[in-house]
Amino acid sequence: MLPVSKIQLSEIETQIVEQAFQTAYQRETSALIAHVRDRSATIDKLSDLWYLHDLLSTKRHEIDGKYDFDENSFVFDFASLIKEGWLRLEDLQGLNKTILSKISALSRM
Amino acid sequence: MLPVSKIQLSEIETQIVEQAFQTAYQRETSALIAHVRDRSATIDKLSDLWYLHDLLSTKRHEIDGKYDFDENSFVFDFASLIKEGWLRLEDLQGLNKTILSKISALSRM
Repeated sequence: MLPVSKIQLSEIETQIVEQAFQTAYQRETSALIAHVRDRSATIDKLSDLWYLHDLLSTKRHEIDGKYDFDENSFVFDFASLIKEGWLRLEDLQGLNKTILSKISALSRM
Repeated sequence: MLPVSKIQLSEIETQIVEQAFQTAYQRETSALIAHVRDRSATIDKLSDLWYLHDLLSTKRHEIDGKYDFDENSFVFDFASLIKEGWLRLEDLQGLNKTILSKISALSRM
């Protein structure tokens, strides 16, 4: 992980961060639920079922803990979420410009 | 496992045993596929998805290896499949009466 000096968030900024995590979580989990529902409708053999099982194993492992707010890593977490498409910089409006610039730069790496 | 003297199967009996395993396998896996499809259609939150994942983990573990023909254990395997509802004694017609009686007795234990 790149060194990032410790960031002090105001109460409002903390709320923005937590809300952004919640927004990304909702987007990612809704997309996964929709994908599984679509995929399940076409299952007609056991290998399809085990494909679904493998997918759920991977996603469960990925999602577990991913959305816990950690003041030491949220800049990197947000950059990753932007890369993955679950978050947009606009969701973070209200954070100070230095933090936004770091997240934006990291998300393009 | 209860002691059962080694059973010598004729070629036709071996075919009946293998066919019966195949029949039970088809019934169990078709029922599982139908259940997952029904269940998936109602998923609307993440806990439903993880319930499905747990179900698939359990079933995959159960089914894996369950339908491999083993001449030392097929009498017990068939008794279990009858208990579970995936096989009926009628599916085993053609096996000799001693074997059928053992399977029937074990399936009622």
